[in-house]
Amino acid sequence: MKVMIVGAGGTIGRAIVENLQKDHEIIRVGRNHGDIQADLRDDASVQRLFEQSGQVDAIIAAMGGVHFGPLKEMTCEQVNSSLQDKLMGQIRLVLTGQHFLNAGGSITLTTGIMAQQLVRDALNATVVNNALEGFVVAAANELRDRRINAISPTVLKEALESYGDYFPGFESVPASRVAQAYRRSLEGVETGKVYRIW
Amino acid sequence: MKVMIVGAGGTIGRAIVENLQKDHEIIRVGRNHGDIQADLRDDASVQRLFEQSGQVDAIIAAMGGVHFGPLKEMTCEQVNSSLQDKLMGQIRLVLTGQHFLNAGGSITLTTGIMAQQLVRDALNATVVNNALEGFVVAAANELRDRRINAISPTVLKEALESYGDYFPGFESVPASRVAQAYRRSLEGVETGKVYRIW
Repeated sequence: MKVMIVGAGGTIGRAIVENLQKDHEIIRVGRNHGDIQADLRDDASVQRLFEQSGQVDAIIAAMGGVHFGPLKEMTCEQVNSSLQDKLMGQIRLVLTGQHFLNAGGSITLTTGIMAQQLVRDALNATVVNNALEGFVVAAANELRDRRINAISPTVLKEALESYGDYFPGFESVPASRVAQAYRRSLEGVETGKVYRIW
Repeated sequence: MKVMIVGAGGTIGRAIVENLQKDHEIIRVGRNHGDIQADLRDDASVQRLFEQSGQVDAIIAAMGGVHFGPLKEMTCEQVNSSLQDKLMGQIRLVLTGQHFLNAGGSITLTTGIMAQQLVRDALNATVVNNALEGFVVAAANELRDRRINAISPTVLKEALESYGDYFPGFESVPASRVAQAYRRSLEGVETGKVYRIW
C-alpha cells in the first residue's frame, strides 16, 4: 500500500517507518524534513501536500504538540495554540485527505494516555486527546468504505529522559511496540477504535 | 449564593433561572441581553464581564453553538468556528472566572448527549463535547477548593420542533428537568462529574 506518514521524523514516526517500510511504499512527511514538507496548521500547505502525493491508500499522523502548564496561569492563547496544533492539525489532514484516500483505505491518528489519565500540567493534552477520540468515532461513522482509528500511547521509553518526571509510577513502552498498533490499524478490519498502548 | 448564568436567555438558561432564582442571587449574562452582556469568543469581553460582576460564588454556562454538516463537505473553518464558540467560549469563562470565584464555589458547564451518541451531521458536537468533558475532569483536579462539573442533556422537549429530526427515536427531556442537574452541581459536593440527563 501507498502509506503517507505525517511526523515521520519523530520518535513514533521513525518507529512506524521502520515497522512498515519492508511491506509498504512510504511517503515521509514532516514540517521541515521528509519526502514532502507540510505545515498541518495551514490549509493551503495540506492541500499542496496531497496534490504532491496524489491518491494514497493510508494516512498516518504521528504529530502535534500541546502547551503544558497549570490551569491557574493558563491563557486562552495557550489552550487555542494546543487546539490548532495537535487537534486541528490532524483534523485538517483528514478533511483534506479524505478526498485523496482510495476506497478501502485507512486513516490513523495519534491521541495519548492523558485523554483518560491525568498528568501534571497536562490539561491541554486531556482536552485535545478527548476531542480527537470523539472525532475518530464520529468520522468512522461517516467514512463508510474507508476506516479511521487512533493510537493512544503512554509515555515512550525513548522520551523518559525529557518527559519522565510527568509520569511518576507510569510504565513506559518502547516506540517499536507503539508502532505495532499503527500496523494493526492499517492492515486490520476495525474502524472508530482507539488502541490504547498502556 | 451569587450565581452567574451565561446564556440565561436560552431555553436551558431560562429554566435554570426559574429553578434557582428563589434561593439565589442571579446575574443573567447573554450576548445581547441580560444584566451584563458579554461575547465569550472575546478575551477582553469576558474580562470586562467579571470586572462588572465582581466575585461570584458560582458560574454556570449554558451556551455555545457548533456547525452541523457532513464530514465529506466539512471545512477547517467550520470545525474551528465550533471550537471557538462552544469549547473555547466555556474554557475562556473558566480561565478568567477562576480568578473571580470564591473559595467553595462551583463552575458548571454544558456539554451534550452527542459526546457519546452519534447524530447525523453532528461531528463537531461530538468533538466539542468530548473536549469539554475532558476539560472538566482535568480542571477539577486543579481547582481544589472549588468544584467544576458539566451537564450533558439530550434533546430538549422544547427543541423538538427545530431539532427533532436529528434525534429519531431519542427520548426528549423538558428543560425544567435539565435545570435540576445544574442545581445538583451548584449545591452538591461532587467535582469533575458529567451529569447525563438522558
